[in-house]
Amino acid sequence: MEEFPISKAFTLMESGPVVLVTTHDGKKSNIMTISWTMVVDFSPLFAITTGPWNYSFAALRKTKECVISIPTVDMLDTVIGIGTCSGADTDKFDTFRLTPVPGEHVKAPLIQECIANIECNVVDIVTKHNIVVLEGVAAYFDSSRKEKRTVHAVGDGTFIVDGRTLNRKEMMRSKLPAGV
Amino acid sequence: MEEFPISKAFTLMESGPVVLVTTHDGKKSNIMTISWTMVVDFSPLFAITTGPWNYSFAALRKTKECVISIPTVDMLDTVIGIGTCSGADTDKFDTFRLTPVPGEHVKAPLIQECIANIECNVVDIVTKHNIVVLEGVAAYFDSSRKEKRTVHAVGDGTFIVDGRTLNRKEMMRSKLPAGV
Repeated sequence: MEEFPISKAFTLMESGPVVLVTTHDGKKSNIMTISWTMVVDFSPLFAITTGPWNYSFAALRKTKECVISIPTVDMLDTVIGIGTCSGADTDKFDTFRLTPVPGEHVKAPLIQECIANIECNVVDIVTKHNIVVLEGVAAYFDSSRKEKRTVHAVGDGTFIVDGRTLNRKEMMRSKLPAGV
Repeated sequence: MEEFPISKAFTLMESGPVVLVTTHDGKKSNIMTISWTMVVDFSPLFAITTGPWNYSFAALRKTKECVISIPTVDMLDTVIGIGTCSGADTDKFDTFRLTPVPGEHVKAPLIQECIANIECNVVDIVTKHNIVVLEGVAAYFDSSRKEKRTVHAVGDGTFIVDGRTLNRKEMMRSKLPAGV
């Protein structure tokens, strides 16, 4: 995992992959699967939808820290497993044989097996809509990984794998932020 | 275009496709390209990030209505064209040869060429974060269309096309809302 420019970290999330979000409540680490995310600002800011129904939410609210970890298609069954059990009675790092890696800015761990990790601070919780706004403070990318395709949840139990990439940089030039 | 169950309309958006959002300001219709979206609730509620920098935002705020139209990969250059000019000086339906179709619940038009359309009411604007929360009130899907693949913006001028779909309905059963 090498450091990835924070000014480009929004590009890790904009396509809408299913992500894992780790927290550390002071005693133990946990992981939740989140599909409802978006970019809110290039700085970067992200929004995720979560609330008291997720065990991780208490740690997120208390510590105001988390890591967004982006898994690839070969990890899909792990991602679903994480999303269908609870940190209340499961050590998810242990159960799913994932490797926690200490972050530099937050106590929530990175996940070594994921292709990308973004250390985040909670900057706001819009309680009315269960929207948590996160600021990315450091990002990492594992370019040595062969499998780079992420997955997109449809919401009906099916998942769309990344297909081919189309380049429209020339057409988009006027709209891209500096440094991307 | 046939009606699509509103209880499943969140599945049109959850994978994170680039979308078009239409508005009607009382005099004319407009279209903007939005990549920063997420599902917020199964009901369905959606969040999109937009603000005064988009010409459509004034109409969205005033009328509290819009349509989310979901384009497919064959429409990518149209989607980028729409995202790189302004409704202030461009009739986008005319310029991009798109066909407005009257909705049933809102004055903003559906786009006939898109594979799916969702009529929406603005339920809240979280000004602090430029997040607009939309409630879907009716949805439509064109199942006669051959090209069904959507595109996901990366944010750097490249776009990921939908690849293959993986079925994990059995694993996900405990997590799917009723009727999906």
